[in-house]
Amino acid sequence: MRPSKVTLYEVGPRDGLQAEAHMVTVEDKIALIDLLTRSGLTYIEAASFVSAKWVPQMADAAAVMAGIWRAPRTTYPVLTPNLQGYEAARDARAEVVAIFGAASETFSQRNINCSIDESLERFGMVTQSARAQGIRVRGYVSTVIACPYEGPIDPEKVAEVAVKMLDLGCYEISLGDTIGVGTPSDVERLLDVVTARVPREKLAVHFHDTYGQALANILTSLDYSIATIDASVGGLGGCPYAPGASGNVATEDVLYMLNGLGIDTGVNIDEVVRAAWFISDVLGRPPRSKVANAMGKPNVPTR
Amino acid sequence: MRPSKVTLYEVGPRDGLQAEAHMVTVEDKIALIDLLTRSGLTYIEAASFVSAKWVPQMADAAAVMAGIWRAPRTTYPVLTPNLQGYEAARDARAEVVAIFGAASETFSQRNINCSIDESLERFGMVTQSARAQGIRVRGYVSTVIACPYEGPIDPEKVAEVAVKMLDLGCYEISLGDTIGVGTPSDVERLLDVVTARVPREKLAVHFHDTYGQALANILTSLDYSIATIDASVGGLGGCPYAPGASGNVATEDVLYMLNGLGIDTGVNIDEVVRAAWFISDVLGRPPRSKVANAMGKPNVPTR
Repeated sequence: MRPSKVTLYEVGPRDGLQAEAHMVTVEDKIALIDLLTRSGLTYIEAASFVSAKWVPQMADAAAVMAGIWRAPRTTYPVLTPNLQGYEAARDARAEVVAIFGAASETFSQRNINCSIDESLERFGMVTQSARAQGIRVRGYVSTVIACPYEGPIDPEKVAEVAVKMLDLGCYEISLGDTIGVGTPSDVERLLDVVTARVPREKLAVHFHDTYGQALANILTSLDYSIATIDASVGGLGGCPYAPGASGNVATEDVLYMLNGLGIDTGVNIDEVVRAAWFISDVLGRPPRSKVANAMGKPNVPTR
Repeated sequence: MRPSKVTLYEVGPRDGLQAEAHMVTVEDKIALIDLLTRSGLTYIEAASFVSAKWVPQMADAAAVMAGIWRAPRTTYPVLTPNLQGYEAARDARAEVVAIFGAASETFSQRNINCSIDESLERFGMVTQSARAQGIRVRGYVSTVIACPYEGPIDPEKVAEVAVKMLDLGCYEISLGDTIGVGTPSDVERLLDVVTARVPREKLAVHFHDTYGQALANILTSLDYSIATIDASVGGLGGCPYAPGASGNVATEDVLYMLNGLGIDTGVNIDEVVRAAWFISDVLGRPPRSKVANAMGKPNVPTR
């Protein structure tokens, strides 16, 4: 049964921007996050505490976290790949940190340079410290449908990694179709297996719109009672495995569907579209979402 | 239950191109249709026999129909707004003609300059002649979810017009969300009512992707056993009511989902993507589909 309420988990300022080549200033990142806060979003992943050498776009994570308006109803998670990142996130007063694992051995090796088991060990150090300090940890499992190197991924493997991350202390697991190749049948196969081992209320879904399937996949996930959906304002982000292709599904496209379905999110679509046009102006291109283009650029200046 | 086989009804060369400002030559139209034929599509709406004054892009309909390769497995319907158009279509050896009505009184007035009842009378003259000459007639009902002037449209009104068109002798009714505003809930409400009065095997759905909802709406329609889906190669077309927005859902995006769902169409996606890049090159812009952009431009020259 479809949920009556859904939490939109905004990943644009982190997952989206880190895939954009154009360097965005601290001021514009803060302005973007503040616009998103104004829309009513309750989760906005704000930055990544990762080596600036690997992800230059995220070098100013501490300055972003120090500058944003923190609304009481909204949480601003940050990505922390290791203990060092975790400590910087804690010092930046993050209330939630996120760790990023994979269901594909090869993807884990190539993306975070260690095996799945080694990554889980590393995450264990983060979750242990976080739990001791009252910080919640979100777990991402990437390549849940297919891996750019290995091809299709066995849903059992996804469930296994998800359960291990929950056992480490994650409060939620976000299942990511990293390369956006899945269709509703793949999502059904995945969720049949994963929901048998992980409570639905601990699951989120994270779809990329590379092949245009994201909303159909989200609709399918809603039918599995999944009630947390990751999305990226203006469709920020891309797909490193398909240059020129779309990346994350756009928050406003998801929200338009949820509104139509009568599912409550507490998020104002006009404000999300305003944020989409703001950051797209910064990046010097139109938003990569159908809704922002159909609704058009707001008359009120966005910058 | 989802159908095991689906007919993709290609509307790009007609519904798509007529919304494009760039004038396409007869040769390029023929080349596009021949590429689509090669993909295995069994229905390709090839032209519109309408006044060249109103739709200059379709002034060469007879030349297009005379020049295309007609594969035995494929039918090439053409749009005929009135008896004069029908006669020209018959002379061009069309095996199927299509008539275009609306479920909204105001849209009918503004789009075809007569009331719904008057349009049905006019269509009756077409269907009568067509039946006498062994030509099948397809009926479009537009604005089935909402009208740009009237707002939401009552599904009962849609059912009423659909039944009348069937009674006139149409072999199939295509339900069109002309402005692309519907979400899966709207589609459920619509199909609950319409399938109670029209056999499912006589229904097709025609979605625009203006707000990104088309694939989710198609997935919903499949769950209602609808087995004919209109789509437009490369997402050809636009939305006159939302400048800059997307129009028809892209054939290759629909096909990617159907392939993933294990639904047989007999259509080769690589060939559709080739056709998408071909016509997009002609129009001087990238394809408006996720799949064509994700798969990239074929190495083999398309022109």
